[in-house]
Amino acid sequence: MGSVFLSLQATAQARVLLPRLLTQGSRTMSSQKLWVPPPAPLLQPMSVPDRLLLGPGPANCSPRVLSASSRQLLGHMHKEMIQIMDEIKLGIQYVFQTQNSLTLAVSGTGHCAMEAAFLNVVEQGDKVLVAVNGLWGERATDIAKRLGAEVHQLVKDPGEYFTLAEIERGLMEHAPCLFFITHGESSTGVAQPLDGLGELCHRYNCLLLVDAVASLGGSPVLMDQQGIDILYSGSQKVLSAPPGASPMSFSERAREKIYTRKTKPTSFYLDVKELAQYWGCNGSPRKYHHTAPINTFFCLREALAILVEKGLENSWKLHKENSLYLCAGLQKLGLQLFVKELDARLPTVNTVYVPEGYDWKEITGYIMKKHGIEVSGGLGPSAGKVLRIGLMGYNSTKYNVDRVLQALEDALQHCLKNKL
Amino acid sequence: MGSVFLSLQATAQARVLLPRLLTQGSRTMSSQKLWVPPPAPLLQPMSVPDRLLLGPGPANCSPRVLSASSRQLLGHMHKEMIQIMDEIKLGIQYVFQTQNSLTLAVSGTGHCAMEAAFLNVVEQGDKVLVAVNGLWGERATDIAKRLGAEVHQLVKDPGEYFTLAEIERGLMEHAPCLFFITHGESSTGVAQPLDGLGELCHRYNCLLLVDAVASLGGSPVLMDQQGIDILYSGSQKVLSAPPGASPMSFSERAREKIYTRKTKPTSFYLDVKELAQYWGCNGSPRKYHHTAPINTFFCLREALAILVEKGLENSWKLHKENSLYLCAGLQKLGLQLFVKELDARLPTVNTVYVPEGYDWKEITGYIMKKHGIEVSGGLGPSAGKVLRIGLMGYNSTKYNVDRVLQALEDALQHCLKNKL
Repeated sequence: MGSVFLSLQATAQARVLLPRLLTQGSRTMSSQKLWVPPPAPLLQPMSVPDRLLLGPGPANCSPRVLSASSRQLLGHMHKEMIQIMDEIKLGIQYVFQTQNSLTLAVSGTGHCAMEAAFLNVVEQGDKVLVAVNGLWGERATDIAKRLGAEVHQLVKDPGEYFTLAEIERGLMEHAPCLFFITHGESSTGVAQPLDGLGELCHRYNCLLLVDAVASLGGSPVLMDQQGIDILYSGSQKVLSAPPGASPMSFSERAREKIYTRKTKPTSFYLDVKELAQYWGCNGSPRKYHHTAPINTFFCLREALAILVEKGLENSWKLHKENSLYLCAGLQKLGLQLFVKELDARLPTVNTVYVPEGYDWKEITGYIMKKHGIEVSGGLGPSAGKVLRIGLMGYNSTKYNVDRVLQALEDALQHCLKNKL
Repeated sequence: MGSVFLSLQATAQARVLLPRLLTQGSRTMSSQKLWVPPPAPLLQPMSVPDRLLLGPGPANCSPRVLSASSRQLLGHMHKEMIQIMDEIKLGIQYVFQTQNSLTLAVSGTGHCAMEAAFLNVVEQGDKVLVAVNGLWGERATDIAKRLGAEVHQLVKDPGEYFTLAEIERGLMEHAPCLFFITHGESSTGVAQPLDGLGELCHRYNCLLLVDAVASLGGSPVLMDQQGIDILYSGSQKVLSAPPGASPMSFSERAREKIYTRKTKPTSFYLDVKELAQYWGCNGSPRKYHHTAPINTFFCLREALAILVEKGLENSWKLHKENSLYLCAGLQKLGLQLFVKELDARLPTVNTVYVPEGYDWKEITGYIMKKHGIEVSGGLGPSAGKVLRIGLMGYNSTKYNVDRVLQALEDALQHCLKNKL
């Protein structure tokens, strides 16, 4: 039977069936009228101006990543898609410096990974200790409490980091089964030292959970060597990919906790035991779990490939150099850095005090309007106090430092309150 | 002070600082060596072949949507981004046919929206009734149980739908506070009638939750008129956008349940009270909640704009016509449709029995390999029994129907088992 003949036949049949269907008030084509009219703003073109994004994230995407984003979709179980997911897994293992088989990307932004971390490891009544020196510790506290954990906080002032001795006192006092700490505290610009922390936690029979959303690729994190049990990051910072797929990994210790828990996690979407089957982490055949954000995975794959090509150590070095160059420039402008100790400064998110006599909103607004550059104010405990300047991945260049310093210099001349 | 002078100064300072930093074994630049080498597969180009995706989703994205996907990012709180989110909200209100102010897109794929629906409305011990006539009812059952609900199922055979009388008996027997039903059962190809369902549920003091992931835009859903309290969908079906941002909306009844619940939802990421502040659903100033999947939002905005331009009624009509055309062609090929009743057939996902003497995997494999077209096997209760052919949004054209019928005809000639 030829398909041309077939098409004609089918069309004829469709012509006969259709009017009957549309007029008989069938169940699927109901007789109701539309009552919400087409919204006029959607009939206008979308406005997306070009910006240099030097806030705490997202950073601008590299052109190669954006090009990947516009590739036509694959099915979420096609073999080429599985291969891309395998490559993502390899890339995450490299940038995390881990050999954990339970390594994957969750289908959501960094926050989603943060929830996935707690959700899979914490059960009702578990004791959790959270290091709080900025917004992320507060957020982690909220998430752990929602899950029914008994949460204790270890608190330091924003802009400071935690010493091993301070953490040990917390572990002794509260005997938690999970300790959360932020590596790159993007609300304050602090880089938390991680060496020795895993060993310390394990001595107290506690899992170590580290947030590396704002630091990964810009400041050393070595998951296996530092004994980190659960590590997650985002895609829109140093990786310079769109937000929407977030790398995470679980150590053998964390895996054991997950596979021996008594209750199911409250989420199916983020259940790592289910995700592990989808991501082929157990060596068994893939099992459909959910429809992944396919082209966001394309982007993540390309972003990881860029970092693999560049080399992690070179990336750390570059971020450090550009951050030092920026900080020197900021001080030349008379600005005071928020994080006192040089080694505790996060190279990806740089924080300076809002200078006296200025309103931070005027400065950031002026720089955005006049120079097309995003520089951010503070967040959480640093709100109103600091400006945050991000230099991440694709954006971490000397040229961008020069641009933002010029813009700041201009803003400082124009935004002084109560000018004489 | 000129910025050139400034740059030189800063570079000099950086040169002095850097070697010291890299050699002193500082906390942030630790002395450990990399031990996971760069993975070779990431040094190869990414492979993304072009496919015609005629499975149950994702569908191919329209070129306009893909172009939006490659736009450079904006900050998640920039005013242009807020405007795009407002436009998304308007677009969802139109395609859902609702005036609910609590309308937004969650930052995840369709499954994530399904979880968000249950998570926000259900508290521990709540009675939930789930209509099960395919995979999605089973999935919903799992999710509701994880949240501690007392779940009852109303079960029918795959390929069938539920009558109002059957649902009423379920409501009477179990007195649930929430009833879940799937509008477009993509695992079986059934379109569930929705007229009168909201009114019925409300008479029994029960909220109506509808999954329209596979049907939205292809088969009428009229949220307000049909009295649906919680409605969600995906972006990768009729909307023909990448997966990763999922429309959802809550009625006033659902909002009341959410705002008077006694416990916080177990997720912060999906807490609608928090999301409502981020999406400006309460008329108060926007509040940062999480970093949204920015360019996935660009895509969703454009996909909604395309549907607004085309008109919902035209879109429904087109999907119906193309589905009828396909079904007629399938029958001409001697294939038997899985859903008996014409009006109960979902126009977006069309199901036929795997013909006797054939292995479904050989058919789909052949069509993929020889014709570059995705046609899927069954899922859940329909696994092994059916082939699923999707005609959604950008892909719902007569030309594509002809292509897939030709491919099927070819496959039927080549894949017969135990050829004589």
